[in-house]
Formats: sequence, C-alpha cells, structure tokens
Amino acid sequence: MSLGWKRPVPEGWMEILWEAMAEDLGAMDPSAAIFEPDHMSDWYIEAQAEGVVCGAGLAFSLLQPEADDAESARTEVLVTDGDRVQRGTMILRGKAQTSRLLSKERTALNFLMMLSGTSTLTAQFVEKLQGLETKVVDTRKTAPGLRALQKYAVRCGGGVNHRMGLYDGIMIKDNHIRAMGGIKPAVARAKELAGHMTMIEVECETPQQVEEAIRAGADIVMLDNMDPFTMQDVVRQHGKKVRLEASGGITLETARGVAQTGVHAVSVGALTHSAPSLPFHLEIA
Amino acid sequence: MSLGWKRPVPEGWMEILWEAMAEDLGAMDPSAAIFEPDHMSDWYIEAQAEGVVCGAGLAFSLLQPEADDAESARTEVLVTDGDRVQRGTMILRGKAQTSRLLSKERTALNFLMMLSGTSTLTAQFVEKLQGLETKVVDTRKTAPGLRALQKYAVRCGGGVNHRMGLYDGIMIKDNHIRAMGGIKPAVARAKELAGHMTMIEVECETPQQVEEAIRAGADIVMLDNMDPFTMQDVVRQHGKKVRLEASGGITLETARGVAQTGVHAVSVGALTHSAPSLPFHLEIA
Amino acid sequence: MSLGWKRPVPEGWMEILWEAMAEDLGAMDPSAAIFEPDHMSDWYIEAQAEGVVCGAGLAFSLLQPEADDAESARTEVLVTDGDRVQRGTMILRGKAQTSRLLSKERTALNFLMMLSGTSTLTAQFVEKLQGLETKVVDTRKTAPGLRALQKYAVRCGGGVNHRMGLYDGIMIKDNHIRAMGGIKPAVARAKELAGHMTMIEVECETPQQVEEAIRAGADIVMLDNMDPFTMQDVVRQHGKKVRLEASGGITLETARGVAQTGVHAVSVGALTHSAPSLPFHLEIA
Amino acid sequence: MSLGWKRPVPEGWMEILWEAMAEDLGAMDPSAAIFEPDHMSDWYIEAQAEGVVCGAGLAFSLLQPEADDAESARTEVLVTDGDRVQRGTMILRGKAQTSRLLSKERTALNFLMMLSGTSTLTAQFVEKLQGLETKVVDTRKTAPGLRALQKYAVRCGGGVNHRMGLYDGIMIKDNHIRAMGGIKPAVARAKELAGHMTMIEVECETPQQVEEAIRAGADIVMLDNMDPFTMQDVVRQHGKKVRLEASGGITLETARGVAQTGVHAVSVGALTHSAPSLPFHLEIA
Amino acid sequence: MSLGWKRPVPEGWMEILWEAMAEDLGAMDPSAAIFEPDHMSDWYIEAQAEGVVCGAGLAFSLLQPEADDAESARTEVLVTDGDRVQRGTMILRGKAQTSRLLSKERTALNFLMMLSGTSTLTAQFVEKLQGLETKVVDTRKTAPGLRALQKYAVRCGGGVNHRMGLYDGIMIKDNHIRAMGGIKPAVARAKELAGHMTMIEVECETPQQVEEAIRAGADIVMLDNMDPFTMQDVVRQHGKKVRLEASGGITLETARGVAQTGVHAVSVGALTHSAPSLPFHLEIA
Amino acid sequence: MSLGWKRPVPEGWMEILWEAMAEDLGAMDPSAAIFEPDHMSDWYIEAQAEGVVCGAGLAFSLLQPEADDAESARTEVLVTDGDRVQRGTMILRGKAQTSRLLSKERTALNFLMMLSGTSTLTAQFVEKLQGLETKVVDTRKTAPGLRALQKYAVRCGGGVNHRMGLYDGIMIKDNHIRAMGGIKPAVARAKELAGHMTMIEVECETPQQVEEAIRAGADIVMLDNMDPFTMQDVVRQHGKKVRLEASGGITLETARGVAQTGVHAVSVGALTHSAPSLPFHLEIA
Repeated sequence: MSLGWKRPVPEGWMEILWEAMAEDLGAMDPSAAIFEPDHMSDWYIEAQAEGVVCGAGLAFSLLQPEADDAESARTEVLVTDGDRVQRGTMILRGKAQTSRLLSKERTALNFLMMLSGTSTLTAQFVEKLQGLETKVVDTRKTAPGLRALQKYAVRCGGGVNHRMGLYDGIMIKDNHIRAMGGIKPAVARAKELAGHMTMIEVECETPQQVEEAIRAGADIVMLDNMDPFTMQDVVRQHGKKVRLEASGGITLETARGVAQTGVHAVSVGALTHSAPSLPFHLEIA
Repeated sequence: MSLGWKRPVPEGWMEILWEAMAEDLGAMDPSAAIFEPDHMSDWYIEAQAEGVVCGAGLAFSLLQPEADDAESARTEVLVTDGDRVQRGTMILRGKAQTSRLLSKERTALNFLMMLSGTSTLTAQFVEKLQGLETKVVDTRKTAPGLRALQKYAVRCGGGVNHRMGLYDGIMIKDNHIRAMGGIKPAVARAKELAGHMTMIEVECETPQQVEEAIRAGADIVMLDNMDPFTMQDVVRQHGKKVRLEASGGITLETARGVAQTGVHAVSVGALTHSAPSLPFHLEIA
Repeated sequence: MSLGWKRPVPEGWMEILWEAMAEDLGAMDPSAAIFEPDHMSDWYIEAQAEGVVCGAGLAFSLLQPEADDAESARTEVLVTDGDRVQRGTMILRGKAQTSRLLSKERTALNFLMMLSGTSTLTAQFVEKLQGLETKVVDTRKTAPGLRALQKYAVRCGGGVNHRMGLYDGIMIKDNHIRAMGGIKPAVARAKELAGHMTMIEVECETPQQVEEAIRAGADIVMLDNMDPFTMQDVVRQHGKKVRLEASGGITLETARGVAQTGVHAVSVGALTHSAPSLPFHLEIA
Repeated sequence: MSLGWKRPVPEGWMEILWEAMAEDLGAMDPSAAIFEPDHMSDWYIEAQAEGVVCGAGLAFSLLQPEADDAESARTEVLVTDGDRVQRGTMILRGKAQTSRLLSKERTALNFLMMLSGTSTLTAQFVEKLQGLETKVVDTRKTAPGLRALQKYAVRCGGGVNHRMGLYDGIMIKDNHIRAMGGIKPAVARAKELAGHMTMIEVECETPQQVEEAIRAGADIVMLDNMDPFTMQDVVRQHGKKVRLEASGGITLETARGVAQTGVHAVSVGALTHSAPSLPFHLEIA
Repeated sequence: MSLGWKRPVPEGWMEILWEAMAEDLGAMDPSAAIFEPDHMSDWYIEAQAEGVVCGAGLAFSLLQPEADDAESARTEVLVTDGDRVQRGTMILRGKAQTSRLLSKERTALNFLMMLSGTSTLTAQFVEKLQGLETKVVDTRKTAPGLRALQKYAVRCGGGVNHRMGLYDGIMIKDNHIRAMGGIKPAVARAKELAGHMTMIEVECETPQQVEEAIRAGADIVMLDNMDPFTMQDVVRQHGKKVRLEASGGITLETARGVAQTGVHAVSVGALTHSAPSLPFHLEIA
Repeated sequence: MSLGWKRPVPEGWMEILWEAMAEDLGAMDPSAAIFEPDHMSDWYIEAQAEGVVCGAGLAFSLLQPEADDAESARTEVLVTDGDRVQRGTMILRGKAQTSRLLSKERTALNFLMMLSGTSTLTAQFVEKLQGLETKVVDTRKTAPGLRALQKYAVRCGGGVNHRMGLYDGIMIKDNHIRAMGGIKPAVARAKELAGHMTMIEVECETPQQVEEAIRAGADIVMLDNMDPFTMQDVVRQHGKKVRLEASGGITLETARGVAQTGVHAVSVGALTHSAPSLPFHLEIA
C-alpha cells in the first residue's frame, strides 16, 4: 500500500534507486561478504536531528526482504514521508541478512539524508508563512537526474511544485524577452504554441513589464527581485487577474516580508540546490 | 582536447548529462520554440560569487555547436575545472541558436552550481590545512547517481578521493565489527576476500581497537570521532605503520586542529552531502 | 538547423529512431550486404497520395550521410513537416551507399507513413472548422511509446495538444467522479495537489455537472457526449468563465456541427489511434 | 501460466509495457492521487464493438495486484488473445486500489485498442479466404518499436508472419534488383551470404522475372501488383517448385479473387499500418 | 566506408563496444591521467601469431580520433576482417593522445583476441574441408551478449551461420521430441506455428528418425552423433530431399571424415565456446 | 539465501542474464511454443566432464519457477559455485513448464559452460601451486561485458582477482613508461592522482627497473617475462618491501617453477581469454 510514501508518489524512483545501488556496489561488495548468508541482524534507522522526513518509502522498498528470505527477514517503516521527526526518532527497523543489509545501508541513508534535507528546509519556509495564503514553490534548480525526487521532497515539506521541466508550462524569462525584443511578441508567439492545458508565465522586473505581460495574455507573472513596496502595488493592481510569484534570493529571513505583500507564491531555489542534508544513521542492535 | 576538464576526467558524465537534459525537456520545450531556428544570440556564463569552478568542461560539451550549426555557432570555455573564480568571472561564452541555447541553459547551470559548490567547499578545507601534510578526503555520502561527478568536484577542489564505492576497497565499519563480534575475525575474513590490489581499512573508536586492527593486518585505520589528544597518541604510536584517517563531524572550524595531530587524512561527508551551490548565470549579450 | 522539422521539435525522437532501426536490423541485414561498400545510388522519396507530411525531419536525420561517407553521399530534404504534399511530391532525395540506404529504407518510410497519417487526418478536421475559433485537440489514446511523435504530428496538422500524459494536467474523469462520490470532493482534493502551473479539467455529462465543476473551481470542462443543443446552452452560460472541450465520437462529419456550438475545442481520439497511414515510397533513380 | 496470451508469446512486451506506463505517468499522476491508498474499486473492461481481442494477456499483467496489495486486490482475465468478442463482452475484471487502477487504465486500453484493431482486421482477411489454402501474411510496415506486438496481433487474428525484420530472411526487392542490374547476380550473391536456415525471396513484377528468380535459386517469389490472370499462369507453372506470395494493395474486397489464383500467401501492409483501433473501455462498477 | 569490416556488418556492436569500455573505465582511469592532454604517441597493433583477423573494424572505430582531436590524431586500419595475418603483421596504426590511447588499449585488444580466436579456429575447420561442398556451421553455444559478434567471427573465418537464436528458425531437438512423445506430432505443430520464411530442422539420432522427420515435413535434418557409415547411408537416401547437418563433438581431426559422407554442413560448438584467443599487442613506437 | 552462489556475489549478473535471454529469444521462441502451457517436464542438468562448477547460482535464478507457476513447478540447486564436479554430477534439477524450460535451456548452459571453464582452469593452476604461498591472479583480458562474471569464476576456482578495471588500482605498464620517458616521473605523477585507498603497481622487465619502481614508491611490482633466476634474485632483495607479481605467458607447465621463486602472485591471462568451456547438458527425465 505504498508504505512510507506521501501521495502522489514520484514516478521513476525505482530506476534511480537501483542505479544508486549499482553505483555503490560496482562489481561486488567484498566487505559485506565477510558474513555468511545465514548471518542475520536486527537493525534500525533513526534521525540524528529534528526535521521533516522524506525517503522513508524509498528506504523501505530498498530494505525489504528479498524473495528468498521473506521468511527469516522483515522490515517495518514507522513514519510516513512528510512526518516531523526528532533527534532519535526511529524511522525504520527490521531483521535482515547482515551482508545484504550492510551492502544497502549507505544507499538508503543517502536518499534519506538528501531528501529530508530538502523537505526540512521547505517546512521551515512554510512555517515562516504560517497564517498567510502565500505558497512556497520550488524551481528547476535541481540535482541532475533527481528532480522528481527533490520536487517530491518539496511536497513532503508542505511546498507546491512549480513546473517539473520545460515541457509542462511556458515561461518567458529575461533571456527570452531580451532575445525576442519585448514581452508582447514573445507572449503572442507562446500563445500559438501553448497546449490545451498549458499556462504561460512571464518574468517581470518592473510594474511596466507586469502590465505588458498581462495585456499580452500571461496567466502568471513572476516578480523578479522586486522590492516589497513595488511588489505590494503590483499585487493591489493585478492580484485578482493573474497569479503572482515572487522570486529572487528569498531567504528564511526575508520570506515572510515578501509574502505579506500578498503574492500568491514565493519561489526558492535553495530548497533543491542548497539544502543541507538531515543526518540519519543505521544501527545494528 | 577535453577542454575545460581537469584530469582524470570522470567517466559516465555524458549519460548523466543527456539524462539531465531529457529530464528537463520532457516531450518538448515550447518556451524556446518561440524563436525561429535562424535566430542567433551571443551569450556568456559568469560566476556570481567567489569559489572554485567545476563543471566547465561539462557545460562546454553541452553548449557546443551541434553538427548542423557548426558554421554559424561557436562556444569557448575560458577556465579549467579547479580554477578559482571571482564574482563576475566569465566561464564560457559563445554564439548559438537562441532556442537551443535557452533549452540547455538551466541544465548547464545546474551542473555548474552543484559541482562548484562541492569544489569550493573542498578548497576551503584544503586551505585550512595549508602547510600540513594531511589530505582532505571525501566519503560515500553522495547524491544518488552523481558520485563520480561529485568525487571529481572534490578532486577539483584539491581533495583526494576515498574509495569510489563498495567495490574498490574493504572497509570494516562499526556495524561490521558489532555483527562479527570483533575486529580480529572481521579483518581475517576480509583478507581472504581481498583482491590483489585491495586495501583494508578498519573504523576504530578507541586506541585498543586501533591496536587490534593493526595486529589483524589493516592497511588503513579510521579514527572515528576520537578526541584530538587520543588521536595524537595514536598517530605517535602507529602513524608510521599504517595510514590514519580522522573522521566524524569535522568542520571548517575544527579541521586544522584535527589535522595537526598528524593524521594522514581527514574525511568530510559535507563536501558531497551539504555543500551549498555556487551561483552562476547565463546572459544573452 | 533542424532541417525538415516544425517547432517545437518533439524530444526523444532519436532514441525511438534508433530503436526502430535496431528492431528491423536485428543481428544484420544480409539482403543489403549483396552490395559492395562503394556501390552508390541516387534515390528519392515521394508521396503516393495527397496529405500533410510529418516525419520529413526524422527521415532526413536517418538518411543523412554517416561520418565516413560525408564526401561521397548527400541528402536533401525538400519539405518541412506540416507542408501539404500531393501524389508525386518529392519529399527527400540524395545519393548514398546502396547497402546503407536499403537497410534504412523501411524504417524511414514507416515513420513517414504513420506520422503523416495522423497529420493528414488532423488537417482534415482543422479544415472542417475553418472560420471558427474552435481548436482540434488530441487525446492520450496513442500508440505505446510513440506519444510525443504522434502529438507532434497533430501539431503539424494544425491541431493543439491536450495534456501529454498524466503528469502535466489534472483531469477528473467519470471514473474519478464515480469512485469519489461526486465532483465537488474530487476537485477540492485535486486543488490541494495541483502544482503552481497545473490546470484542472473535469469531465461532465450534464449541465448540472458543469455547474458543479465550475463552482468547485475547475479551469476547463469537458462536455462528454453531450447533444449539440445542451452543449450550446452550456457554452452560452459558462463559455466566458472556463474553457470548454467537446468530446466523444466526434467525426469529420459531425465536427463542424459540434464546433458551431461555440466550444473552445473538440478532442478527437481517432487522430492518434485510427488514422490510416499516408503512403510514401523510396525509389532508386 | 501466461494467462490471456496465445502462444508463442511475443518477447520484449514487458519493456514496452513499462515504457508506455512511464510515458504516460511522467513525474507523477496527481489526478489519481486524490484517492487514499486504501480506497478500493471493483472494475471491468469490456469491448465496445465486435472483433478479435489481442492484448488481454498484456492488460492482465499490467492490472495484476502488486506485491503489497496481493491480499486485498485481485484480477481476472476472461478471454484469451485471439478470441472473438462482441460489443459488451467482458475482457477482464477485478478489484484494485482506485488510484493505481486509474493510473494504469489508459495504458491498458491503448494496448488493447491498437492490437485488437490489427487482429480484427487480420481475421476479416482470413475469413474472406475461408476454404482456400492461401495464408494471410503481414509485412514490415509496422509502428516503430511495436513490431513484435503487432506481428503477434496478426497471429492472434489467424494470420502468418512474414520475416520479423531484415535479419531473418533475405528479400531481393525492386530497389535491390535495379541497383544490382538484375535478379541473377543479386540472388547469386545472396546465396553466398545466406545462413544455414535462411530462405531467399525475390520480388517480381513479370513472369519473366519469376522464371529468372527461380532459375537463380529463389525459395519464395513475391508477385508484386500482378494482375490475376498473369498470377494464375505463374501459379500453374511454378506453384509446385516455390512458395508464391501475392502483394500490392490487396483489400478486403480483392483478397479472395487474388487468393483464388492459388498463390500460397497474400501479404497485406494495412494489417499493421492502417487498422482502425477496436474500442474498449474500463468501468468502475 | 565501414573500414576494416567484412559485410554484412554485425549490428549492435557499438553498444557492446561502449559497454566494454565503460566496464573497464569505471569511474575514471587514473593511470592514463599521468599524461597531459597534449601528449601524443605513435602506436601500432600487431598480431603475435598466425591466424585470421576479426575485430579490426571494431578496433578502428574505437581508436579513431575523437571530434576534438581530429586534426592532431589519425588512425589507419591495414587489414579487413577475414584476412589472414602472420606473427608480426601490423593490423592498425596511428597517432593519438597518449592518455586516450592507453585507456582504450585493453578493450581494443580484448575484442581482437576473442573474435580472431573464433575466426582462426573456423578457418582451420574450413581448410580441413577444402575441395568438399560441406559448410562449416556454428551453434548457439556462445558467450552471453556476444552472439552477433561471435557469429560474425565465424563468417570472417569462412563459416556459415546457423540460426542466430530461437526466433529465426524452428529446431525440434531431443528434448522437444522426448517431451512431445515423437517427431511427428512435434513437427506437425511446428508447421502450424512457422512463419512465411521459417525453416524447420529436426535433430535425429537414427535413420528411422530421419525418415520420420522427412515424412513429417522437416526442411533440414540434424544427424546427431551418428557414425560415418550410417551417416553416409542417410545422405544417399535423403540428401537430395532435405538439407543434412552433422553435429556432435566434431573436431579438427574428425571433420573431414564426417564431411566426406556428403552432409551439407558440419556444426561445431567449439568455434564459439572454446576457441583459444589469438594474441595481439599494442606498442607505442 | 543466494542459493548456489559463492560470496561475494558478482553484481550486475541479472542484467547480463536477461540480456542473454533476450539475445536468444529475439521476437519469440516458436519451437518451444509447440507445447501447451500446462505441459510439465521433470529435468536435470549434469556435468559431462570433471571440473569446478561456476554458474550454478545463475542457472538456478534463471530456471526458478516464475510467479504464476510457483505451485506446479520447482527448482533445486545441488551444488555451490566452486564445488568440484565429476562427469555425471547432477547440478540442478526440477519440474517446469516444458515450453519455458526449453526456451531457457541454452542460455543456462552457456553460462555454466563458459564460467565453469574458467573456474576449472583456475583450479588447475591453484593445484599446481599447492603448498606454496603464491596466489593465482587474473588479468583484464576478459570477454567484453562479462568481466565481473569471469572474475567471479576465477574466485570460484580459488584464484584472486587483480584490479577489476582501470578504476580500482593504478598500473604503470610498459607503454606508460615508454611514453613518459621513465618509471620515476610516471610513478611520481601517479602518486599525486592516487586515491586514499589506491595501490600503485609498476610493470618491470629488469632488476634495475624494479629498484627504480620501489624507490619511486610503487606498492606492487609486476615482473614481466623475467627468467626464474633473475626473478628469484628480485624476490630475495625486495620481496619483503613490496608485493611481487610474475606475469607473461605462464602455463600449467611453468607455473610451479615460477611460483617457487617466491613471488606473491602469478597472473594468467588465459584464465579468462582462452579457457575451454566445461560441458554440461540438460535432460528431460
């Protein structure tokens, strides 16, 4: 029943998981081979700091008994992704062939540490905006190959996903505008190319640009590095007509101030490119 | 001639690069398609903060002209991975089909930001140990699927790679010792399994364990979370016989103190699991 | 310069192309091997019926000279995907190693025939709606593994893409509504899960359902198998508030009648699941 | 026990199936995620028109309970590929997690619709030849990447497979003959390259070519677009010595006439490139 | 122009080649990295024993200059696969970046050694049958994943390929006959399943079985471990009606005796499962 | 519990196994399809010559009952890789769907034959060195794509693995030395590039080179084609300081003589490039 996962589950995790295992194992694991196949150990994974867990479902899948030791081994997941954990909270536990367990330990922990790092940082931003309607949104500044998982971690932390890639939304950014020679022709052309369910967002630096984008037919406007006063004016004037997203160097310190302007979302690249990992360890009991 | 890369070049980067592009592109890039194929732009990438660059070779490979625009487009890489850059240092520049450029922009920057984050943090540790013989070493706490690249970034920052995975070295860690019931039997069995060129390292928490490991035939001993005084004793007694590695929560603040005990290496997980990214941006001129 | 393609180019076509070649070639092509490597032929591909071409860019890529015969061989593409062709219109021509050409012939033609079949049928629907604002939209009823290409063929025929898959839009369909016990709770939950740029569409069979969907916050409403009179009422009442899509067994005969109700789009599964192929052949001159 | 499949089962279907699922799912399915994991539904798939079913085994494999819901879910396949179904015939039924079911629905139906389209059209041709010895044979005019499945559908409809690709038979076609300057040298060279179990077929347009092909040692002769009278003469003269295949624009209307000439096989490209799909739908009970 | 290859070229070699390189390179080649990128070397590969070369085309492809050193490097292939070489015959030579060359050396030689081993052994069998019509044929006893290449090596040695796999021919072997309870029902069922271009071969141990197989409609009969006298009788009686293949422990010593019975082919598993490799080395001049 | 395998199990075998099956099956197996799905057979695999078995675990995995015939089928493995077997020793046995069994037979036997060939030859070398401390070591002269399995076979035969590839050890070979202009600069540069757990080995042809290598800091020295007397001198002088490996054309006849010089290891390329296969067959009871 998708134990440990929050829904919707990010697709493709299984390939990433097995590639990560293959990357670590290479040709073999001679260290774990010091144990005979019938050597079993009781084990658990626990958080070593407070945060929001992400990766429990993934770790559970990796550490589950394999077909041939289903009778002697067992694995239990004690949390669901998105749960808040404390230093010492037990995440998973089980009994396993020692050699298999030790071969998988690092890979399981690497996922947990990276993803929980992102969900924890996201939750910190969400907490800062408590009581406001403003959403915390991620970006495409992700680790290569790991975007679906990192964006899942953002959801586990209470954030909302921006577009997943170039394919599921149109963004007219500063470089598009500069190269096209203006917002109007860029949006006009984009509307011709847009699919039946595609929204168009335009990155704007000034209120004039915002007006131009809205007149051109943008569905969403990103306010790039705009000062709070200008932002507030823009929200008052256009906040009912289009969705407004604040972006540009927003930190835990500045987030609430930005959100109080009434923008619908603040987007934060650091959620996926600079979140420090949350520590976990696996112990043999 | 492998432009932009420091040697040895990490293998497998091309698959990772194209998977990252595919991840971002999905079915198509409708935003970039607003430009006609013959619309060209001059562009450059520059660092937005001081640090050690890593990923320039990769970005160059991605942003090179394709077979069919070799005559009209060009790309130049202005640094070599491992070079120190300042805020504003130009990394690459060129002329490209605007639509192709904008489709690739984010992927190129994502690699640069992540890898330069690691090389920059590594260089900060290396700088702290200036004048000492102690090496800065990485761990297996890496982002799934990106280990070869992250370990390359460590080398670019002046660090030395620990084993790449489970396959190229034997480590007898705390869980191995606990499950085996001691260092001696674990190392004995490991020596039977070791290949012709394989070293055996043992994780030790006490001087007694260090002695036991060396008697059992360890080639390297990891001193796990040992206090500096004990560490210094261990170095004095065993530093000539085996390679000694200090490990466990070492920070930029504590690194020099640890290194001054005379250990041969300090290993730092944060290099690959918690380095904040180094910012870069791409501008159309 | 992406010769032969209409933009945006569907991503992933290269993998599909080489898998198709591999599927046909298996271990080797003994028939083509009857020619010596230096045996060259002049060739051309021409349409054998009137229609809208799609796959010219793909065929050009396949039939281009390879690295080692760039001097003796050449390939020219004479149309752009989306162009109307007549019986006898030449699509591509060139000079090639005979053995290579004959090994690739069938694969090139298979893409051209299938994709042009879809673009031609799409263009027929578009033509039926000439003068109206209603768009021709595709569905997810596609050939497994070929969706991006088939949806590209729809664009080449003048159609507009519905969502590419389950990931880039939320649709609450009849089964969702039945299982959830109503439109309201289904849309409410969907809004919680929706990303920053995600639209929500609801499939409705009655005007009552349309009202319910709009009140719940749907961005688009699909009118499933609704009769033209009811449809017209719905358009009058709600056509300014939400996007309306007519769906369900729409044919070339009925399309204009449906469109005249004023719906924004008609979606047609047959474009991708039942379009007869458009014939092409390759001739050695 | 390979439920639902007719034998021999086409290899490689599992990869195609999971790629098709991945193509549809992308990063996630937010629509299905509106259901809690423990929300179960009873469902069935039924044919919406008369025809010959193909893809039941494949759909069964896709819709089977997964490892973790084997106790609460179940799936039953009620037909075997190749069975004739009526409008309303139930094909599969079961009980499943609603969210998993809805994520898989479209992919299962897409296979069923496409493959049953081909098996139904094949069966119509086979029926036309009832009482004659002539076989209905397919071609290499298939959807890229789906050949093994489409050729399986032909077998399910009662047809016989021509060669699977370039590798498992030698065909000397019009372009080979033209480029080689005649049938004789082409076949002579082909016989040198032929494997121990490889047959050689030659495409002929005139009785003179047929004679030349047989003298050169062809095992099979394809009569390309030959008129029935000439064909009958060829059959009388050579029908005992070699296998004869009629080809070229054969339709349901003309097939019986062609077959009555006594040819051993008629080959029909439309089976795999222009068969309209057979409609099926999935209903939650 | 497919330099170095004999035709038809085995498909899929490129994937096998790059997987072999990846297998050897792993994360990087630190040994070759001791050379600066601009360090160039002149090199050649020569045979260290007499034999028939196979793999020259493959090695040429691997050792060709890469895109970025096309000006400074060059590679020349001096033989064509299937050529006889002597101890000291130069196979390829060139000038290359030393580090790239040394990273590729072992992989190039491994292909050459393995494939030339097979082509050399095949040529020895062919030579033994000089003046007779009997062909030397291979089997499916091949190294996993390398069948297309090994069967190519057989062709380079002058042998003829048996079926490539289970898919391109029907063989009713001893286990099929035993499980089916006789040759007749097995062949009868096989004829129903056979494609338009598929031959049926039956493995027989006695003249009675040969008769039964022919009556049942076999196209080819394999004479398994039959003594030469019986074999000769079988040839006299049935050699005009079906193709006859002798099989079972045939060695260089016994091959001519077997062939003189008049069988059309002798099949030899050792060509692909036990051929000793032919030695080659690469030297920096 | 990893039945049939010796530990450490070589990673990646499953991909190789399924690729080998796919290679043999192609589009389908029409021969095995003559059996109805419910036709079951008792079967066993036995050795047809004396040797050391390798591949039993792999064959067991392949021949295990599939999910849908777990109740009617069973498979038993009677040996463990590395066990000595006699002509007639039963390796595996079971009861299976006849058609599945016959489709898998050849692939299972191909692995067993190739891998047992290598383990048997290795065991013969090990036996020759009985009573001495010298290890039998393999090389990188392996079949492309099969290195991890072949090196596993060496371990099963009692041998020790040399480095797995270019990545897990540094070897300065004759070509490196020649191109670098000497051992000293080559080793000096290698030490800069070496990882924390990487050993450096140098290939030497003369005692002078051995001295130079040791002074430069080599961990291991390979004595290439050195005569036994010189070798003995080298062992006496340096055998305590570094690991010594004898290499170059060592055969079963010469191995003991070489080992008696006291070298720590003899490396033998023939283990993986020229071992004749060990015969096995599968019989239906």
